[in-house]
Amino acid sequence: MSARLKYGMVGGGPGAFIGAVHRAAIRLNNEADLVCGNFSYLESECNEACAELGVDPARSYYTFEEMAKAEGAREDKIDWVVIVTPNFFHYPAAKAFLEQGINVVCEKPLCFSVEQGLDLKRIAKANGCLFAVTYTYTGHVMTREARQLVRDGVIGNIRMVMGEYPQDWLLDALETITEDNKPWRADPKLSGRGASVADLGTHIENWVHYVTGLKIEKLACNLDVFGEGGVLDNNVEALIKFKGGATGMYWTSQVAIGFDNALKVRIFGDKGTLEFVQEENNYLKVSPRGKPPQIYSRGSGYLTDEAKKYVRVPTGHPEGLTEAYANIYLDFAAAVRDKKAGLMVNEEDYGYPTLEQGIGGVEFYNKCVDSHEAGAAWVTLDD
Amino acid sequence: MSARLKYGMVGGGPGAFIGAVHRAAIRLNNEADLVCGNFSYLESECNEACAELGVDPARSYYTFEEMAKAEGAREDKIDWVVIVTPNFFHYPAAKAFLEQGINVVCEKPLCFSVEQGLDLKRIAKANGCLFAVTYTYTGHVMTREARQLVRDGVIGNIRMVMGEYPQDWLLDALETITEDNKPWRADPKLSGRGASVADLGTHIENWVHYVTGLKIEKLACNLDVFGEGGVLDNNVEALIKFKGGATGMYWTSQVAIGFDNALKVRIFGDKGTLEFVQEENNYLKVSPRGKPPQIYSRGSGYLTDEAKKYVRVPTGHPEGLTEAYANIYLDFAAAVRDKKAGLMVNEEDYGYPTLEQGIGGVEFYNKCVDSHEAGAAWVTLDD
Amino acid sequence: MSARLKYGMVGGGPGAFIGAVHRAAIRLNNEADLVCGNFSYLESECNEACAELGVDPARSYYTFEEMAKAEGAREDKIDWVVIVTPNFFHYPAAKAFLEQGINVVCEKPLCFSVEQGLDLKRIAKANGCLFAVTYTYTGHVMTREARQLVRDGVIGNIRMVMGEYPQDWLLDALETITEDNKPWRADPKLSGRGASVADLGTHIENWVHYVTGLKIEKLACNLDVFGEGGVLDNNVEALIKFKGGATGMYWTSQVAIGFDNALKVRIFGDKGTLEFVQEENNYLKVSPRGKPPQIYSRGSGYLTDEAKKYVRVPTGHPEGLTEAYANIYLDFAAAVRDKKAGLMVNEEDYGYPTLEQGIGGVEFYNKCVDSHEAGAAWVTLDD
Amino acid sequence: MSARLKYGMVGGGPGAFIGAVHRAAIRLNNEADLVCGNFSYLESECNEACAELGVDPARSYYTFEEMAKAEGAREDKIDWVVIVTPNFFHYPAAKAFLEQGINVVCEKPLCFSVEQGLDLKRIAKANGCLFAVTYTYTGHVMTREARQLVRDGVIGNIRMVMGEYPQDWLLDALETITEDNKPWRADPKLSGRGASVADLGTHIENWVHYVTGLKIEKLACNLDVFGEGGVLDNNVEALIKFKGGATGMYWTSQVAIGFDNALKVRIFGDKGTLEFVQEENNYLKVSPRGKPPQIYSRGSGYLTDEAKKYVRVPTGHPEGLTEAYANIYLDFAAAVRDKKAGLMVNEEDYGYPTLEQGIGGVEFYNKCVDSHEAGAAWVTLDD
Repeated sequence: MSARLKYGMVGGGPGAFIGAVHRAAIRLNNEADLVCGNFSYLESECNEACAELGVDPARSYYTFEEMAKAEGAREDKIDWVVIVTPNFFHYPAAKAFLEQGINVVCEKPLCFSVEQGLDLKRIAKANGCLFAVTYTYTGHVMTREARQLVRDGVIGNIRMVMGEYPQDWLLDALETITEDNKPWRADPKLSGRGASVADLGTHIENWVHYVTGLKIEKLACNLDVFGEGGVLDNNVEALIKFKGGATGMYWTSQVAIGFDNALKVRIFGDKGTLEFVQEENNYLKVSPRGKPPQIYSRGSGYLTDEAKKYVRVPTGHPEGLTEAYANIYLDFAAAVRDKKAGLMVNEEDYGYPTLEQGIGGVEFYNKCVDSHEAGAAWVTLDD
Repeated sequence: MSARLKYGMVGGGPGAFIGAVHRAAIRLNNEADLVCGNFSYLESECNEACAELGVDPARSYYTFEEMAKAEGAREDKIDWVVIVTPNFFHYPAAKAFLEQGINVVCEKPLCFSVEQGLDLKRIAKANGCLFAVTYTYTGHVMTREARQLVRDGVIGNIRMVMGEYPQDWLLDALETITEDNKPWRADPKLSGRGASVADLGTHIENWVHYVTGLKIEKLACNLDVFGEGGVLDNNVEALIKFKGGATGMYWTSQVAIGFDNALKVRIFGDKGTLEFVQEENNYLKVSPRGKPPQIYSRGSGYLTDEAKKYVRVPTGHPEGLTEAYANIYLDFAAAVRDKKAGLMVNEEDYGYPTLEQGIGGVEFYNKCVDSHEAGAAWVTLDD
Repeated sequence: MSARLKYGMVGGGPGAFIGAVHRAAIRLNNEADLVCGNFSYLESECNEACAELGVDPARSYYTFEEMAKAEGAREDKIDWVVIVTPNFFHYPAAKAFLEQGINVVCEKPLCFSVEQGLDLKRIAKANGCLFAVTYTYTGHVMTREARQLVRDGVIGNIRMVMGEYPQDWLLDALETITEDNKPWRADPKLSGRGASVADLGTHIENWVHYVTGLKIEKLACNLDVFGEGGVLDNNVEALIKFKGGATGMYWTSQVAIGFDNALKVRIFGDKGTLEFVQEENNYLKVSPRGKPPQIYSRGSGYLTDEAKKYVRVPTGHPEGLTEAYANIYLDFAAAVRDKKAGLMVNEEDYGYPTLEQGIGGVEFYNKCVDSHEAGAAWVTLDD
Repeated sequence: MSARLKYGMVGGGPGAFIGAVHRAAIRLNNEADLVCGNFSYLESECNEACAELGVDPARSYYTFEEMAKAEGAREDKIDWVVIVTPNFFHYPAAKAFLEQGINVVCEKPLCFSVEQGLDLKRIAKANGCLFAVTYTYTGHVMTREARQLVRDGVIGNIRMVMGEYPQDWLLDALETITEDNKPWRADPKLSGRGASVADLGTHIENWVHYVTGLKIEKLACNLDVFGEGGVLDNNVEALIKFKGGATGMYWTSQVAIGFDNALKVRIFGDKGTLEFVQEENNYLKVSPRGKPPQIYSRGSGYLTDEAKKYVRVPTGHPEGLTEAYANIYLDFAAAVRDKKAGLMVNEEDYGYPTLEQGIGGVEFYNKCVDSHEAGAAWVTLDD
């Protein structure tokens, strides 16, 4: 057994769903332990969370600044910090840890602006830090299968990409929002310029880029704010033109009744088509030209070796959200170990979504808002 | 038994799939007989078709002009003509029959320009003619159910509409096109300014309008021409803004590998969602807010009376394309009978898609091409 | 155009759903005309039906005996009679027409006993008559595809067959049955010893035999009578052992809430599996060993030639119940024409379900009832 | 934070898939730690597993007898042992730990005979031990929802139950079996009298009993041994009669090409139907009589409180196999804590499958084999 790794967490306190998922995912892999945290800026809440999670009270921190400084000074410092706060903390928290030479895992959207993202990139490089952005759905086995099939040329040159991500949970939430009782997601100062476009849109943008390598050349985007309590966009439609000639459409919604969390991406090439539906993440539909569509099943013998590496339980036994996060952590921990062992680490080789991809998402959603503010006009992305 | 009706056909000769479907649909209803036709401009082909179809050789016509004139002059003239030619014949043929006071059933897209459409409208009115445009999918029982549910307020105010219509049949066809061997669909002079956008896009546009009553205010549209042999658009993406604030996206494709004829429309209201998939036309998915999605099945007792009128065989016994056409003819024949009986006929009340809707489709696809030619800029539709 | 054929009908009067389907199916093919009928034993009803259907009043018959005799004596006699009466008329009516040398198309279940069936076989042979039994689902294109794939060895040696046919329509019907108001289906004297097992079970039995050629060696069967008004079986479970070693289970139900008409058969070989679902008759699932399952779509280029012969409209445009019947009539009319042309006709070669298959169904359901009456004990079928 | 619990494991060493799943499930819950184990009878393998899993080398045991004795003697003894060995160890291992007063979690099938099961029950009672049998699929949220809906009378009185569990993984395995290289599953002395019927059949039997409370009165069962290397049953069909009048059919297979792990149960009542498909465990199909079928989604607001207790991540974010096991451990740990706190514990109230249910499975599969050996005759189960 290799030496266990250690990590800390910023955010993810009582009632925060996603922090619990990160911790569960890391426990699934069983190679790293939670040793410190800034789970809340309220001392009592933070201490309670530490007690609940088995964290030494001495490493219960009430601000991320304090935590970064204290942990950075320890000999047995954490191998990485997980940042699962509301969006507006992502940038300053990530920066604080990077400056202490601590590797970072951060939720998406990475930050508010490309400038912030480039700043993080500069500091990470200067301090030799690794950085993962948890675009969840890149962690699914069948995402890895899709990426390998594209790389193997199975669907040929890509012509169109159709991405959608409808949910309906916001409908109820909208009705409880008042000026005095506004969640951070409804406050542009705390969540950024975009809501659905940032929260969901970056998932589509990243999944497509992760699987195909395609980069967006320009886009035209419409943002809708439906409902009485609506402040930020909760329904987004975009036309996409990729570099190289492929085109596409992206749609996200938080008010699409009947849809839970229905990320779906279809990639059309001149030799075949791939279809991935997040809610059915154990499957991938592969349609070769001139032949019947096929349903690939996670865990089957015919999968590529690249996908097989991530299979945990046999075919027909469903894996889900937690395994997706766990796979990202599997990749990240491998990079951390290699770096600790003094090896050269090229983050792109490890499979986890990188800081570069985090910045790509930030550019994407900001350009979507730019387009919308210009009357859904076409805007060009930077090279 | 009421007196049988009589009809003629222009186009639909040997090898023409859609003419045969029209005739089969009319036979299903068993209330009208084919008595004349201009099935081909080649005399021998036309005569053979007449023999094959049991049409009196004396009523085998070699041009539509001749047919319109001859039939218009008969006492026992046809009750309607069916126009199922390549697109460029639609306008002149329809015009010729309307001028003779003969009711018209015409395939979509209706014609090349809104001006042509308005011209037909003027002539139809002047001559007291009925006019149906065969937007096939309005004929499905579950389309009628969807329309009634919207009218009954089941899904509330409509916010978003997502329409798509991917096919892949053109992939093989593209490879056989040469400059000397070009089908009419690949020649703008014969098919009009748009291909996929006209052939498939008008189906989406009409289905949405038919079911919801929504009218498009403006749109931004991108047309792609994929493949070596490609001349006209074979992949189309459009952002839509409807009058009243709803938004949407439409996508059509003839090069989407793995898709046969997959018209799918989702209509999202503030109280619920409807989803119709043409290839599963015996079902309609209805998702009420806060409750589990439901699968409505054609023929069930819980359907609206409006939909039940069109049910031919019990639930679980599939109906398909031919029944959809037959239902449109059922509606049209009812109007024809009422007109013959001297009743006032308001075409909108009968259920079949009207000339007005045909013109709507022509405006839609022309505006799509306008937008594309302006760099996928937003263009506004006429009131 | 070949000379048109002529047919008559026994049963199928006002309100009889299945008679109307037969007539519609024949109209779809457009090669035969209805010229006489015994649509009801009530003179007025029969005459009205004839008027409605365009049948010469002189050929409106009030008993099948009269019709058989009168038509048998005509020079221009009908090419076949369609028998779509309640079950207890099948045998005497078929016999009457066969004795006049008239070809017969009869609904299933063929008759009440194997003895009756063998009697019909003897008379048909003596009079040189053709005989089709309308096991509807053999007419679907994808049934023909399944049969050809089995014949081509695609799934290897068959090991298991799972067949089910649940419906729920009887639930409502049960509640309206009283001793004085009993439909023929609820009266063993009129419907035979079995209800669901005969009405639905024979469909499974025939579809499996038609597609695979397998013959049942023995079976153990349980019949349930659920509900207050229940008289005959409305839920049936059977274990099956086929000659040659394959095994299977069949289930039919008329009280399975949530199921419309859900015939589904899965055939498992040592090289692959076929799955056919009647309600999705435009598709066939084909799972080759060690490879992902594939969804075959009716009308696609990769289908076998045998299946392609029956494709009427392109892939993605649904066909349904009426086309299934029409395909059976296509086969039968071809045999009739060949017989009229003096050719040797081997009925097995034409594709329609034969008298032999009708007898097979009668044996099957009688043996099911035998087994049930013996405590669901195993009973052996005759060779 | 409550004091953490401690557990040990027998079996589940290197390469054993199911032991790893148990450990991962317990880590998901994060309330118990693995502290000892007999992972292999090979000392080096056992020691390696302990090192890999962070278990104190002093608590690495080479036989379960030694482990039971040593742990039973410790003050800080384990709170439970997990038994995940080949089947033939279940009984003696469970017995050894029960005799030391240690609670047991054991994989299914529980043991070889009802006598063994009753023996375990006697010893467990005498020593005041808790006992869970890990029928995995009882742990799914939607299984709990199904059970609650049945208890709430949503589907009324149950009439039929259709259960199936096809897999195809054995096909490849069969081809590698030789007399000298036989896995324990292919040796009746090590796996028991039944293979597929015990491994898969007990899952159906238990799921149905768990959800509905129904008990089997009698059954008739056929076992098939397909393939050259086949020794024990790999395909099983059974007719079932339940006490109270319901009937059903169960099918399991390990040679059903195209099926991964497709447990599916449909329960038909006189008011509605439930359908659960293990591979789509985040959904439950609920069909009320006379209304459209509904798709319930795990995590939705309309679920029963009983099901909501087990929801870990929001709707649309898939949970899978590991969460199912984790839910069983959640229930079991609650019972363990209550027992430690001196409370009266009625195991039936906690939700995990009990020893009683384990014995039920053993009786079921033995009666299936009895029936088969008697020529698939009907056999009656004990009261």
